[in-house]
Amino acid sequence: MTKPRDDATAGLSRRALLLGAAGGGLVVGAAGGVGGAAAVGAVQSASGESIDLARSYPFYGQRHQPGIQTQPQRYTVFMTFDMVSDTRQDLQVLLARWSGAIAQLMQGRTIGSVQPDRTDAVAADTGEALDLAPAGLTVTVGLGPGVFDRRFGLAGKRPRRLAPLPGLPSDQLDPALTGGDLSVQACADDPQVAYHAIRDLARMAQPTAATRWTVLGFGRASAGPGQKTPRNLMGFKDGTRNIQSEAEYDRFVWVDDDAAWTRGGSYQVVRKIRMNIENWDADAIGDQQHVFGRRKAEGEPLSGHGEFDTPDFHATKGGAPVIAPTSHIALAAHENNGGVKILRRGYNYTDGLNQFGLLDAGLLFVAYMNDPAHFIGLQTKLGRADLLNEYIAHIGSGVFFVPPAPKQGSYLAERLF
Amino acid sequence: MTKPRDDATAGLSRRALLLGAAGGGLVVGAAGGVGGAAAVGAVQSASGESIDLARSYPFYGQRHQPGIQTQPQRYTVFMTFDMVSDTRQDLQVLLARWSGAIAQLMQGRTIGSVQPDRTDAVAADTGEALDLAPAGLTVTVGLGPGVFDRRFGLAGKRPRRLAPLPGLPSDQLDPALTGGDLSVQACADDPQVAYHAIRDLARMAQPTAATRWTVLGFGRASAGPGQKTPRNLMGFKDGTRNIQSEAEYDRFVWVDDDAAWTRGGSYQVVRKIRMNIENWDADAIGDQQHVFGRRKAEGEPLSGHGEFDTPDFHATKGGAPVIAPTSHIALAAHENNGGVKILRRGYNYTDGLNQFGLLDAGLLFVAYMNDPAHFIGLQTKLGRADLLNEYIAHIGSGVFFVPPAPKQGSYLAERLF
Repeated sequence: MTKPRDDATAGLSRRALLLGAAGGGLVVGAAGGVGGAAAVGAVQSASGESIDLARSYPFYGQRHQPGIQTQPQRYTVFMTFDMVSDTRQDLQVLLARWSGAIAQLMQGRTIGSVQPDRTDAVAADTGEALDLAPAGLTVTVGLGPGVFDRRFGLAGKRPRRLAPLPGLPSDQLDPALTGGDLSVQACADDPQVAYHAIRDLARMAQPTAATRWTVLGFGRASAGPGQKTPRNLMGFKDGTRNIQSEAEYDRFVWVDDDAAWTRGGSYQVVRKIRMNIENWDADAIGDQQHVFGRRKAEGEPLSGHGEFDTPDFHATKGGAPVIAPTSHIALAAHENNGGVKILRRGYNYTDGLNQFGLLDAGLLFVAYMNDPAHFIGLQTKLGRADLLNEYIAHIGSGVFFVPPAPKQGSYLAERLF
Repeated sequence: MTKPRDDATAGLSRRALLLGAAGGGLVVGAAGGVGGAAAVGAVQSASGESIDLARSYPFYGQRHQPGIQTQPQRYTVFMTFDMVSDTRQDLQVLLARWSGAIAQLMQGRTIGSVQPDRTDAVAADTGEALDLAPAGLTVTVGLGPGVFDRRFGLAGKRPRRLAPLPGLPSDQLDPALTGGDLSVQACADDPQVAYHAIRDLARMAQPTAATRWTVLGFGRASAGPGQKTPRNLMGFKDGTRNIQSEAEYDRFVWVDDDAAWTRGGSYQVVRKIRMNIENWDADAIGDQQHVFGRRKAEGEPLSGHGEFDTPDFHATKGGAPVIAPTSHIALAAHENNGGVKILRRGYNYTDGLNQFGLLDAGLLFVAYMNDPAHFIGLQTKLGRADLLNEYIAHIGSGVFFVPPAPKQGSYLAERLF
């Protein structure tokens, strides 16, 4: 695995800030003489990060669809659709129209006129992204198992490993957040750009396909060379041991042993995972670290000293394992799963407040792999035993086959038809 | 009004892209021979924008709270709270603790240790913003009318113009999205930073105050020198004639004729406005422009040629007014409202899909003014006659007094107590 380079200076500086904040605490005295913390004024982070909104990615002519190996952007809108039409040609035309539109959107263009000359015409593009930069937009389209049922005459072409996910331990799925014949994942560094893409693609889908469920996600760009590992809403780093090298992409992510039209594609598994963050926030730090198997601030495994140290699942202290066998990292580790890895590319989400006034938030888990059995195996183990299960619930789910990117002049999954 | 400088080159370039997209359209032929749009590869926008996440703002020692005159950031989390305690000292301590925490958060710090030394200790900070830059975070705290009811013995100190908003024409308010004793507006260029701030402040509020309602908003940074005007989810520019000069802030935004503790404060009016965007998207461009009184692509008034041309509400064509008297800009214009202006600082929002599978989205309208009567007057007119009412509904509402920023060593509204 490629170990991300750390900016040591920035790291130290952030560390100092953390220690400063921890040491300073909050000064809250008696009423009438209450004072705020001592720190003052504008302290600039030394790790001056910036987001280049002018970045754009190509859609046509790549080996894979964008939005998988692409450095994760800050924002996603994920939506699934059900086919309303049961005509193969309608599906084909929708994928072709989406392809053309996606290519234009990813370049920061509209998908047609925002302001047509004829005043009785309806604009092709809804307009809210006009004047905005491409913001690194990628759109990734997946085909659900339903595409290969009897409706479209494509049953014989079903990707070999595509089937609805089986029931899994700890499933608490809401049917309204589950399934779909098509998935669209739009990721961008500007939420308005991502939302615009999904909105205009949903509009183009009518009346062929209807919206089914959607999740809006946010997060820091994930771990990569020179970047720190992002954190989930439990405050822990997520993705320290994620797939990074080309060799691992080839081994675990891309499909290359199935029909020609599928090669360079991947399977997308999506789970909406609710986190009971208010309960979590009341849990002692020792227990939180026991549940994950890592420390919180720097993310090192309980058996090690640095974030990227390989966890030692055999280490013991006073006869007990240092990393609990039912901790999240022990159950999920490739060492304990026959070497299997999946590419995680998730986002945090929040739905505001629930009916009890509690913060309603969690993880939009999105993973890519060349065999959904890898996720099924992992989640079967995790769902049975993971200490984390006390604090999470899988409430939404979907599985899709993401075909390779279209060639110039072609469209998504053309060779399927 | 200060006219924002336009980057003419960038404008032209975006224009060219628009025309290209409009002219090119989407090539969708017969099944089997369907081709995407002709454009290929990575075309970078010439208007290379970037977001500097290292930016931070001071909290203490300013004349006004941040998040009002501050250049709008890309993301907001707005939340209101109800006091559970009816003890004045609890309110006072909460405002003091919030002040200290806000000052640290705005510097990119945590509000205490993420990983306390004692494993049985609960961390003070939830941790998900650790390692993140300040991202221009501002937190703005408001006091609702309830703070000045009988509970806290502060009735005699009520800001002169603070009272619950009256019922207004076209109100469709959901009580679960209305009111609150306290408001917190967190804005940042990183959604995880804004969410972290609200989450940790909500946690500190327990058990003194309980969450009431929340909205998560996004948007492009609003119009300002050198920046283009942002668009709402109807695709129209919003804020072309917004308050910009210091003189207008002094005249329309800041309170300076009330008790000493209120001076430099402002009134915050918040409305959650649902937009029926799918109906809107089906409306002909001529009608959309008639409803707003402006053209869509560039935003010029129907009577003019450039976005910043002053609308001519007396212009006629063939005997009919060029800008309809019931258009949005005609009803809202300061020329038609005794010269009154309010500072609009809103964000777009989306709640995903509604129960009919339709896109559920709209505007989190946030406005600042030195007299809520200015909003009430405007909305009374708009609610009665605005052509836009066919496509929108005011579903949430709140009004708050935002006290001035605390001095160093003090806390929010200290002089109220």
